Parts: sequence; structure tokens; C-alpha cells
Amino acid sequence: MLIHTKMELSKNAKVTLVGAGPGAEDLITVRGLRILQNADVILYDALVSDELLSQIRTEIPKIYIGKRCGLHSHTQEKINELIVTYAFKYGHVVRLKGGDPFVFGRANEEIEYVEAFGIPVSVVPGISSAIAVPSSQGIPMTKRGVSSSFWVMTATKRDGSFSQDLVYASRSSTTMVILMGVRKLHQIVDEVSKYRDIMTPIALIQNGTTENERCIVATLETIKNHSADIVMELPGIIVIGDVVADHPTFFEEEVQRVLRCSF
Amino acid sequence: MLIHTKMELSKNAKVTLVGAGPGAEDLITVRGLRILQNADVILYDALVSDELLSQIRTEIPKIYIGKRCGLHSHTQEKINELIVTYAFKYGHVVRLKGGDPFVFGRANEEIEYVEAFGIPVSVVPGISSAIAVPSSQGIPMTKRGVSSSFWVMTATKRDGSFSQDLVYASRSSTTMVILMGVRKLHQIVDEVSKYRDIMTPIALIQNGTTENERCIVATLETIKNHSADIVMELPGIIVIGDVVADHPTFFEEEVQRVLRCSF
Repeated sequence: MLIHTKMELSKNAKVTLVGAGPGAEDLITVRGLRILQNADVILYDALVSDELLSQIRTEIPKIYIGKRCGLHSHTQEKINELIVTYAFKYGHVVRLKGGDPFVFGRANEEIEYVEAFGIPVSVVPGISSAIAVPSSQGIPMTKRGVSSSFWVMTATKRDGSFSQDLVYASRSSTTMVILMGVRKLHQIVDEVSKYRDIMTPIALIQNGTTENERCIVATLETIKNHSADIVMELPGIIVIGDVVADHPTFFEEEVQRVLRCSF
Repeated sequence: MLIHTKMELSKNAKVTLVGAGPGAEDLITVRGLRILQNADVILYDALVSDELLSQIRTEIPKIYIGKRCGLHSHTQEKINELIVTYAFKYGHVVRLKGGDPFVFGRANEEIEYVEAFGIPVSVVPGISSAIAVPSSQGIPMTKRGVSSSFWVMTATKRDGSFSQDLVYASRSSTTMVILMGVRKLHQIVDEVSKYRDIMTPIALIQNGTTENERCIVATLETIKNHSADIVMELPGIIVIGDVVADHPTFFEEEVQRVLRCSF
């Protein structure tokens, strides 16, 4: 992959950050796909699907620089350096990131680092999983008379403790969308239950918008009964709020729960 | 536009809600554009660009059913009815909506109405303006050490009063993204200033991602000096939070302000 014929540095170094969208290969934008097909080299991360990469011209080098996966794990500092190195070597680097680069994508750190070398950077937005994954399950972000806002957050701070913002969100009526929270699901539910009714609907979606998509729908009270269905190693999106009741299985879940309680 | 040769009702009635994205014609998804090119009829709203419509095969009828624009203003009830009528007449209706259908798009009302007639509905997400428009100005939603969440909301309730959620959002450290708030900008700033430092950066972006894009960057204290630059008739997106300081003109604005204060 790293072969390049000219040893001199490219005079046309530039970088485009492209959002790949939530998972499915055709949920990238038209602009994003066009730019990928004209890249000199593509640096992609762990959330980008093989199906998308397989659509791109085979002669364009595609290099994995993700943070997951033991053998090839990179720090953000290393990723920043690689982007600059490849831009000087190849010319146009497309940095392909899952979801949207500006939603928990650390895009700014990459932009600031690259621009410090005088390399121009542009950004093509992508569909954020935070919105599209619940949508693909029929769960809207907002709904007239039910929720007029949504709050996308990580549940915990860098030190692992809960953010005070989780309390403000729980006390409000917003649709809460929590990323990177699968392993802390039970603690999150306990915390939110202090402020919201235990009958509040909650959904956990894993592998969103792909063929392996799985969705668990319950209430703050009943989600703990579903532990066996959750794959703790997979990332997932948690949605808490009355909009989750729009999910086709929510009512059925409730009927089952009531039936179980009756006997 | 309304000509159809067969008077019998289509047996293949179906509806796809497609998000058109934030404005630029190539920020629709690959899937969304493919579905548009295979539609039997397209029903589009006011936020969809002419550039996007001009890319779609000319033989596909494209009918405006937006809510703006005096002469052709439709209520939501009328829009729901039109979708069903066209599905029975033509077959595959693509309902093309600006941004993402599930973000203040009233998609659920259309889905529930259409499904009640036994017509299947599917949804293709779009890039929400709430995220992409600030991004296109270099303003991230989240940034490590600055903001770990963002809250997308309308500032006011249906009766025009402020939502209590605006207080929770102001008291938290979230990036606030306020839609449909241009006309109430000064009142919003007054309300938020009760809880956040008056030096908090704020941006107002209008005509986002199009060639007429305009962006005003200031602080909660100084935004009032920019009234003459705001077109009250245009929709716009307000972003409040420290991430706005990433906008390239923010620092310059501050220098100008300090200079003005010094003389």
C-alpha cells in the first residue's frame, strides 16, 4: 500500500475530511463519494464499512488508521502525523471518518494540526449515526406535542464519571441520544431514573443501518431484563424519551410486560 | 404536471420520505438521489434547492407542496392528503424534505397518515442542517475539552413562550443549536445570558451551505450590534457555545471589539 514512485514531496498536498455516514455504503453524500473517487490516498477509520471501500477505484491506496483493533491501534497524535505525511507524499488525502467529522469525530484536532503545516483542509459533512440510526428504526428525534428538541451526548466525562449535563438533560423533556454508553447502560438508566418516570421508553441500537442491525426497546424499568441481548463489545446508541414509543415493537413489549406481571 | 393517462388507481402505491440535506445539491445521499431518479412523482417542500431538482429526470413530475410562499401554502393535513392521493394515482411517491425528515420534519405525522391507508412507507435520512450548517463554517458540534454534547432545539413552544428546556440547556455546558429562532434572537440572547457568561460566543448562519451563505459571529454581549446584518425573513441557525470560537473570524471580532472599547 505504501509504494510511491516519486520520492520528491507532492506540491499539491491537501486534505479533505469526509463523513462516511452511519454505516450503509449508500448513505454517504454524493459529494463525499465523488471526492473519494478522486483521492490520491484514503485514510479510513474503524467505523467505515468494507462495502463503501469496495466501491472506490482499486488503484487508490486505502489505509486503515483507526483506533480500534489491537494490532493496528493508533493514537490521535499518530493519526495527525500520518495525515500530514501522506499529504506530502501523495497529494490529496481523503480522511474518511464514520458518521459526521464534527460529531465526536475530533475533526478539529486533525484540522488544526494539518493547517499548521500550511496544508489546506476542507470538510464534507456526513450523516451522523446519532440521528440516522434511531431514524432507521422509526424513532424520530422530534415530534410535535412529544419532544421539541434532542440532546446528543456522551454519558461520561474523560475520567469516567457522569457529566452534570446528564442531570440537566434528564430533568428536561428532550430526546436524549447517548453515544459510547453501552458498557455503562445500567448506571445511565439508574441516573436518568432519578429524574424521569420509570415508564419512559428507551432504545438501544447496535450495528445501526447495516444488515446486522439490532434494536432493543423497553422502558427505564424493564431494560435491565434485556442484558443477555446486548453485545457489550459493540458500540451502540441509546435513545431515551417518549419518541421511542413510536418504535413498532414498543407497544408489543409493553403488552408482554403487563401480561407477565398479571400471572 | 397533474396529467396521468390511466384513470385506475395504481396498485403499486408506496411512499419514500427522503431527506434532501442542508441545501447544496450534492449533499443528498447516494441512496436518496437514486430513489429520486426512480420515483413516479416527487412532492418537495420549500427547503429543497432548484439545483437538486434540476438533476432529476425531467419526465418525473415534481410538485411543490411546501408551507411557505403565499400562493401555494398548504397545511400539514393537506400535505398528508396529497401524498396519499398521488401514491394511488402514480405509484411511488418520493416525499423530498429539506434536511432530515426526522428532525423537525413532521415525518411521523405523514407516515402515520399514509400507513393508515395501507401504503408502505420507508425513510432515507438526510444531513440535518442543524449539524452541517455550523460545520460548513468550521464550527464543530463537539470538541474535546470544550463541549462533549450538543442540543438541537426550537427556542419557543407552540404558543410562542420560551421552553423550560432552554433554561436547562443554558445552565449546562452543551453546544446549543437553535432552529427557527431568528425573529426572537434578542429575546433568546437575553434569556441565555441569565445563565451563561456574556462573553460566550454565538453564531447566526443563514442560507447555509449555499453560495449565498452568510454567517455572523459575536458574543452574547455583542450580537445586538449586528442587527442590520440579519435578514429577519430568512430562516437561520443560531449556535451558542465555546465551540463557536473555532470560527475563523471569531478572534478577529474580539480584537475589533477590544479596540473599539479602548478608544
